[in-house]
Amino acid sequence: MRICIIGCGAVGSLFAANLATLDDVEVWAYDLAREHVDAINRGGLRLTGAGDVLGRPHATSDAAELPPCDFGIVATKAMHTDAAVAATRHAFVDGCVATVQNGIGNEEMIARHVERVIRGTTFPAGKVTAPGVVQWDVKGDTTFGPFEDRPAPFEEVERLADACTRGGMPASAVVDARGPQWRKVIFNAATNPLGALTGLTHGRVCERPPLRRLASQLVDEGKAVAGAQGIVLDSDPEELIDYAARPDVAYGHKASMLQDVEARRQTEVDFLNGGIAEFGRRLGIPTPAHDSIWALVKGVEASWEQ
Amino acid sequence: MRICIIGCGAVGSLFAANLATLDDVEVWAYDLAREHVDAINRGGLRLTGAGDVLGRPHATSDAAELPPCDFGIVATKAMHTDAAVAATRHAFVDGCVATVQNGIGNEEMIARHVERVIRGTTFPAGKVTAPGVVQWDVKGDTTFGPFEDRPAPFEEVERLADACTRGGMPASAVVDARGPQWRKVIFNAATNPLGALTGLTHGRVCERPPLRRLASQLVDEGKAVAGAQGIVLDSDPEELIDYAARPDVAYGHKASMLQDVEARRQTEVDFLNGGIAEFGRRLGIPTPAHDSIWALVKGVEASWEQ
Repeated sequence: MRICIIGCGAVGSLFAANLATLDDVEVWAYDLAREHVDAINRGGLRLTGAGDVLGRPHATSDAAELPPCDFGIVATKAMHTDAAVAATRHAFVDGCVATVQNGIGNEEMIARHVERVIRGTTFPAGKVTAPGVVQWDVKGDTTFGPFEDRPAPFEEVERLADACTRGGMPASAVVDARGPQWRKVIFNAATNPLGALTGLTHGRVCERPPLRRLASQLVDEGKAVAGAQGIVLDSDPEELIDYAARPDVAYGHKASMLQDVEARRQTEVDFLNGGIAEFGRRLGIPTPAHDSIWALVKGVEASWEQ
Repeated sequence: MRICIIGCGAVGSLFAANLATLDDVEVWAYDLAREHVDAINRGGLRLTGAGDVLGRPHATSDAAELPPCDFGIVATKAMHTDAAVAATRHAFVDGCVATVQNGIGNEEMIARHVERVIRGTTFPAGKVTAPGVVQWDVKGDTTFGPFEDRPAPFEEVERLADACTRGGMPASAVVDARGPQWRKVIFNAATNPLGALTGLTHGRVCERPPLRRLASQLVDEGKAVAGAQGIVLDSDPEELIDYAARPDVAYGHKASMLQDVEARRQTEVDFLNGGIAEFGRRLGIPTPAHDSIWALVKGVEASWEQ
């Protein structure tokens, strides 16, 4: 089986390194960061922290080098989905492409370029600390399901989930992955921007009652928007927020949006709070807290332009 | 007439330098920043920008040096009111003390130490650019009125307003200064934290419609809280926001709260959004936007502690 990880940042690297430890899986890692790609090809892809793994995927910044693959796993930032899948689509003419990205709308974007799409959501998180080295901050589950508009065959969804699980990234295949996905989107939208706007880690956001209440307000709005679509969350994002705040889970984790702000990189807020607010508008559900948070983070991004 | 400016930061310096140009007023400037005090005593206090002024007040960091004064004008950050007035109260045994500070609750704090208190609010703004030098960003009016609980005689209020006006800081004396003060508090609470959280100047906040809408939401909540106290705003804070955003007024001004965040100094958010929210709670008026903004700015302050 051949799997290509499209976008080999923190989350993509967790999949690439773990899957590359399997004898029956050939892993390719496609990423535009040349230093990272060169380091991986030279010395492998090393994970430290929550798990110590050394995987040896093939890495490239040149999409033309990619061979035909059974699966793609898109792990770019949401705003790079279109360009990344457009560049690599030739590798998936007979394959299926899954997303493990943050936010809403990635499947729709992937489906513009490939035939068989897998909806997905993943909880593990980390941080690229050096070329070829990723700190694994948080372990967690991944859920895959056929994307409703352009579904991958369910047995293929199962085959991908099985490979991930065997490789050390526990994954399950479900018929409707929207519940887990919206739970994650709501979790991210309720917590990541609070870290990004304040500079606080997830745990420190949660131990300040006024910020924790703001997170709950964002959760409540998100639940209303999910509910209006008939989406049944597989569990309460509130529980996930409190679970992640534990010292042994992700107390000290800087949300990826905070990492982005510190590096002055565009954030994914359009696909998180912006996505929830957009669905809310279409459905007639007010989302004042998401509107405010979205406006503030976009303002932060604007402050970097002179 | 002898006037002491208590707290000679940007706003205090505007009063001190302008009043010091009057022949019939002796001005003292009390401030804990020794370099600033030394520079003022050496070469005077220079204003540049919206007005070019060189005033020569007496400056000191030692409250014991202050002679008896007819008036005090408190211009410290709101969280330093108590300490500053406690230290200088001996100079105002026979005098009146006014505030030109931001936020809610300064008069109550001053009244714990002195007998005759003047409620006040001022619009001019600037920035200390070097010891003894202040950039005057924004001109504007000042309003004084007797503080209801411990009122200064109205003729004294008029005498102070007259001196300020003659000195180049136009001021008026009114019977009820709560309207102008709440207009300013609402203006500040609706705009300063948006600058502080995003890094944008006042003008750039206002030209982004989602942020401008958030400002309006904060204004609406503030108006409801003022209205529930029977306070009649002298004009609409919305107009002030748009007026200040003009290129010839304060487009490029960094709100004092943004200056504080950039310098990692405690902000006045407790006395702005926190003050409005606190009044809202007492009066049963919901202030969700102020609660959220307050929580975020307090989170920013917390992020500076390790």
